[in-house]
Amino acid sequence: MFQLPKFIEPDFSREPFLSAPDAATEKAGKGFIPHNFYATTIFPEYFKINGRWVLLEQSRMDCSVVLRDGKPHAVEMRNIAEGDEVVAGRADDGTGGVYVHADAFDFQPDCGGTEDGAFSFRTGKSRETSYSQDYDLLYEVLRHDRKHGSIVWVLGPACVFDHDSRRAMENLIAGGYCHALFAGNALATHDIEAALFNTGLGQDIYSKKQMKNGHYNHLHAINLVREAGGVANFIRDNSIEQGVMSALVRNDVPFVLAGSIRDDGPLPDTIGNVYQAQDAMRGHLRGATTVIALATQLHTIATGNMTPSYQVVEGAVRPVYFYVVDISEFAVNKLRDRGSLSATGIVANIQDFLVNVERNLVTA
Amino acid sequence: MFQLPKFIEPDFSREPFLSAPDAATEKAGKGFIPHNFYATTIFPEYFKINGRWVLLEQSRMDCSVVLRDGKPHAVEMRNIAEGDEVVAGRADDGTGGVYVHADAFDFQPDCGGTEDGAFSFRTGKSRETSYSQDYDLLYEVLRHDRKHGSIVWVLGPACVFDHDSRRAMENLIAGGYCHALFAGNALATHDIEAALFNTGLGQDIYSKKQMKNGHYNHLHAINLVREAGGVANFIRDNSIEQGVMSALVRNDVPFVLAGSIRDDGPLPDTIGNVYQAQDAMRGHLRGATTVIALATQLHTIATGNMTPSYQVVEGAVRPVYFYVVDISEFAVNKLRDRGSLSATGIVANIQDFLVNVERNLVTA
Amino acid sequence: MFQLPKFIEPDFSREPFLSAPDAATEKAGKGFIPHNFYATTIFPEYFKINGRWVLLEQSRMDCSVVLRDGKPHAVEMRNIAEGDEVVAGRADDGTGGVYVHADAFDFQPDCGGTEDGAFSFRTGKSRETSYSQDYDLLYEVLRHDRKHGSIVWVLGPACVFDHDSRRAMENLIAGGYCHALFAGNALATHDIEAALFNTGLGQDIYSKKQMKNGHYNHLHAINLVREAGGVANFIRDNSIEQGVMSALVRNDVPFVLAGSIRDDGPLPDTIGNVYQAQDAMRGHLRGATTVIALATQLHTIATGNMTPSYQVVEGAVRPVYFYVVDISEFAVNKLRDRGSLSATGIVANIQDFLVNVERNLVTA
Amino acid sequence: MFQLPKFIEPDFSREPFLSAPDAATEKAGKGFIPHNFYATTIFPEYFKINGRWVLLEQSRMDCSVVLRDGKPHAVEMRNIAEGDEVVAGRADDGTGGVYVHADAFDFQPDCGGTEDGAFSFRTGKSRETSYSQDYDLLYEVLRHDRKHGSIVWVLGPACVFDHDSRRAMENLIAGGYCHALFAGNALATHDIEAALFNTGLGQDIYSKKQMKNGHYNHLHAINLVREAGGVANFIRDNSIEQGVMSALVRNDVPFVLAGSIRDDGPLPDTIGNVYQAQDAMRGHLRGATTVIALATQLHTIATGNMTPSYQVVEGAVRPVYFYVVDISEFAVNKLRDRGSLSATGIVANIQDFLVNVERNLVTA
Repeated sequence: MFQLPKFIEPDFSREPFLSAPDAATEKAGKGFIPHNFYATTIFPEYFKINGRWVLLEQSRMDCSVVLRDGKPHAVEMRNIAEGDEVVAGRADDGTGGVYVHADAFDFQPDCGGTEDGAFSFRTGKSRETSYSQDYDLLYEVLRHDRKHGSIVWVLGPACVFDHDSRRAMENLIAGGYCHALFAGNALATHDIEAALFNTGLGQDIYSKKQMKNGHYNHLHAINLVREAGGVANFIRDNSIEQGVMSALVRNDVPFVLAGSIRDDGPLPDTIGNVYQAQDAMRGHLRGATTVIALATQLHTIATGNMTPSYQVVEGAVRPVYFYVVDISEFAVNKLRDRGSLSATGIVANIQDFLVNVERNLVTA
Repeated sequence: MFQLPKFIEPDFSREPFLSAPDAATEKAGKGFIPHNFYATTIFPEYFKINGRWVLLEQSRMDCSVVLRDGKPHAVEMRNIAEGDEVVAGRADDGTGGVYVHADAFDFQPDCGGTEDGAFSFRTGKSRETSYSQDYDLLYEVLRHDRKHGSIVWVLGPACVFDHDSRRAMENLIAGGYCHALFAGNALATHDIEAALFNTGLGQDIYSKKQMKNGHYNHLHAINLVREAGGVANFIRDNSIEQGVMSALVRNDVPFVLAGSIRDDGPLPDTIGNVYQAQDAMRGHLRGATTVIALATQLHTIATGNMTPSYQVVEGAVRPVYFYVVDISEFAVNKLRDRGSLSATGIVANIQDFLVNVERNLVTA
Repeated sequence: MFQLPKFIEPDFSREPFLSAPDAATEKAGKGFIPHNFYATTIFPEYFKINGRWVLLEQSRMDCSVVLRDGKPHAVEMRNIAEGDEVVAGRADDGTGGVYVHADAFDFQPDCGGTEDGAFSFRTGKSRETSYSQDYDLLYEVLRHDRKHGSIVWVLGPACVFDHDSRRAMENLIAGGYCHALFAGNALATHDIEAALFNTGLGQDIYSKKQMKNGHYNHLHAINLVREAGGVANFIRDNSIEQGVMSALVRNDVPFVLAGSIRDDGPLPDTIGNVYQAQDAMRGHLRGATTVIALATQLHTIATGNMTPSYQVVEGAVRPVYFYVVDISEFAVNKLRDRGSLSATGIVANIQDFLVNVERNLVTA
Repeated sequence: MFQLPKFIEPDFSREPFLSAPDAATEKAGKGFIPHNFYATTIFPEYFKINGRWVLLEQSRMDCSVVLRDGKPHAVEMRNIAEGDEVVAGRADDGTGGVYVHADAFDFQPDCGGTEDGAFSFRTGKSRETSYSQDYDLLYEVLRHDRKHGSIVWVLGPACVFDHDSRRAMENLIAGGYCHALFAGNALATHDIEAALFNTGLGQDIYSKKQMKNGHYNHLHAINLVREAGGVANFIRDNSIEQGVMSALVRNDVPFVLAGSIRDDGPLPDTIGNVYQAQDAMRGHLRGATTVIALATQLHTIATGNMTPSYQVVEGAVRPVYFYVVDISEFAVNKLRDRGSLSATGIVANIQDFLVNVERNLVTA
């Protein structure tokens, strides 16, 4: 029976917490923040405000903390207004009114550490790491969070370049395992290209045959969606009943398509301003309990930056599970130093990953 | 003595060119283009307009062609206005008034082909490909285009994570080998972090020592630039005399910082809307004769999409040299199918690449 | 219903075959061959001997052809004896008595070609290639060759570093899907380490926990096997009933462990002389109809060099299916230029691959 | 002025060393060793023999320690004879007569550690690691060890697939920077192929043009060397004055060519029995003070396994510098957990690496 790790409350009745002063603040300038700003981590953090230690909720890393209405808020530099009260100082051990609670849960599901420093082979994640336990835990987490959490998927376009993995993702969405999806213009474009032509960039996603003039397919798909006024309209107007975007629309799962400089088109749904896109993504991440990021370094790191290691759900603090799946060790390990108990890297072709996960959760 | 390959003019006095009709057009709708749109390649293309074959200048791939003032223009879908006359039809062999001139130059500097199909080992670019000739040609091209062309660099942040490569790039800019630079918020941020603290993401870029609280460094750098009102102001106000951004500012070399969803800050110079960033990049690419893209898949593909294989310089058609340098074969080979004589992939750590190039062109 | 591609017999009643001379030979020297030696390919090859075109059976590439008893034999340089009659000349179009029959089968199951040269994106195998069809075909081939062929597996040690993939391989062997196995000293060593300690190089293959003094485990395993006199003895003496080596021994599946310079021990079964190991491997490859090579560049290339693209089974010529599965595009594509209809690269983590294959063939 | 790190002598006049018993031994069986064997590390190790702590010289990891003539010897399992006195027991803290002296030198040239655990980005070696300092140190080490040490190079075949890197290696050998070279059959074969035909596997190593019938070139080269009776004879008989093998022969630098199952030929110099090859390699490593391993996972790991982190040179203990250079982070990081102060990974294309090193040491 799957159990979430238990949160360990800090004991604020001890020193240095008791005699610590309130967290100091300084006022933000126009477009910039106090030089001595404090920056957030991904861990649970407490700020002493009016003599009381208050947990920062809906956090993310590398933000400033603005005190407003007696509560701390993690705010991106660009979103801070002139005159905001910004927490200042860099001590995070409680002595200055700020406390980072790094070892906050009672066990770490993603073990793999070593008791034996001198001979610690293979402690990073690689093609030779064992992933059996990671898959098993992932299945349990997803079954749990399907009902009791919020699962966010972050997809690179390769997910829809293969017939089986595209269908697997479609089934996971239909099965209730996706509460929000982040991607770029390309994923949505090529998914709709596949719905119309069974191709990705002009190549058949099953037989790999290159269609004549197939390079027109994705531009044609974009043009049709633009004409329809957006993805949802297009899906409904044309009764598209397969693929990732169709599954999202038919199951009322929200998605964020963040624009990038390599976009064709773009689709009307794609958010051209990346900071508005960040805001939209963070909107969903404020409640995310599990994040699964596949084959996209850009969106994975962006999402990782905006995702805390914990959430407060129905009054209780629980960990956020964060999976990075990529065929490149470099990409997988980019996020591993988040220091989080819940950041799990899996070195895999995401086609296999999606087929595995779908078969264990939906088909089985 | 370095010679540019010679352009081979198509012979439009022959069939099917002679009796071909003018290129057909249809009017664009509001937000979308005619379903039967023609899309551009990276090759020289001619459109028959009023009985005359006219070369498309300042092209890029995957665009529509709008006829305006008797001339063809490559226009991105998003930039087409309702009512624009858009070329329609997919034939590109001249019979319909559109001709793609794929083998346009008299030799291909980047050979490596095979005369012997059955045993063609190692025709793709990999860690085992020989690059001696590519380096030699690159040096010649850069010496030539320093005076007679326009060299655009596209940089990932890794370029400034190393002491020697950062200085090499600085020297190449100061030496006149860079006419425009494309990057993201991170390159500029970490370059200024290095100027202030000698670190990249908090790690010393020479000794690799991690500074205490070093993760604040880049946020601090961003904040100071925001306070100064922009990169150029900050460089000048603080007399920063080393690094990539300083070299750009001091040598009046324009740069485009394109925003992305993983940005902190951002810097005031970073363009948040990616389609405005595309427009700014394409502005420089309209005259680019050599492009060198290092260690950034996103910006490389974006730039590749917007760069034609040819330019018209002082009335003559010449090739554009496009170099992609990355440590990953996957990244290098992503662009290789542009089919261009001038797209050269080099599998290398871009630190070594920059040090090599600088030593041959500047120090030597 | 799965059908093997049909072999297309060359029509030797046509020219140039009819008037071609017999294949020329020269005598081998002591330790070397005639300077003008002919070297084999992986394709079906015919040699005209006494006026008759004779198919080379049990071929492999880069060998000389020795005529003995009126038949051609592909013989490695090192195995040619002084005085052997070695085919000389390099023409392979039939005019000189040698004919390479490259397009020998009526269809290519591993398509993925392009009809449209100028825009051929993604023709190599990469993380973004669609593999659905390849998996489907593989399942059919394995079901067919389980009864009507000979399936050879080539395994890198990573196969036994993960609990699930080790068990999957064990089940595939027990299920009859493996007629011979090639590996190195390390695979066998770590498989037995896992049987004894549940570790690979001291790390638990499920929980990833590093055992105290775990670096002794594989040395201990080797020592015990040496004491027992060999792998089979050790398996039987200790009633080892799980793992790859146990499955091989209990199901009487032959294996070749080829020695390498990185071996500890070695196990008594490991063949220290690599050319004897080659001979042992080729012995099994003379009848192989499907080869699946996982996560080992050395053994994969070695096996690829020794495997022809065809076999003669019960008088009929059929293709050999050769799968290379690796997480590195570089490794996968190393063999792709064999030119063979049957060489299929799959970019995957072999843990996922083995679990997928086992689930579709055995568990399902 | 370059200074070797100073060795810190353990203080054996303290406990637990003083009252520790002599190291225990048990007798080896026929083909196997005592179950409770002690296994060596790469660090300096002391064994108490007749009441005196004696340093293990010419060590390597994963060996047994045999006491013979009052001295400890690191002996591979396969080289232990029945009846040998093998050190038993696993304690290595001195209490049982065995002491591993892990932090033996007064500074670590390859720093890159972190003082700040929670935010330790980029502590592994990757494409984004700074290598400037590593190159600078390498140049100093090589200048020092050219006269006062023994430099061993370990080369994959890619080193001779490029015109410039092949010449760079040739110049480094001629310049005195190579005291022994390890490689496989392929490196020597393709180097001689390049000397004869300017090709590597049939492809021109400068222009990348594929020669007609070029796949014969390496077989032809092997055959000629076999006819000549060996590499040295061939080089001299044919006055070959360029390339790696020629430089070795002309400068009397010894080389070990270790056989592998992917070899063609082989050359007469290639050692077919891998354990004899190991012995030959270890022979040179007994005195090696710097090892540089390029682009060969097999030979690098093999050499790493046989190389200690220290040597005794003229009575003094000094570190061994071990460099692993490869384009793959996976390959580079495979050896990093040796724990050695002297194991430095550099993620680079070895073509660039060789050209850089040669230019700094020889040409400059």
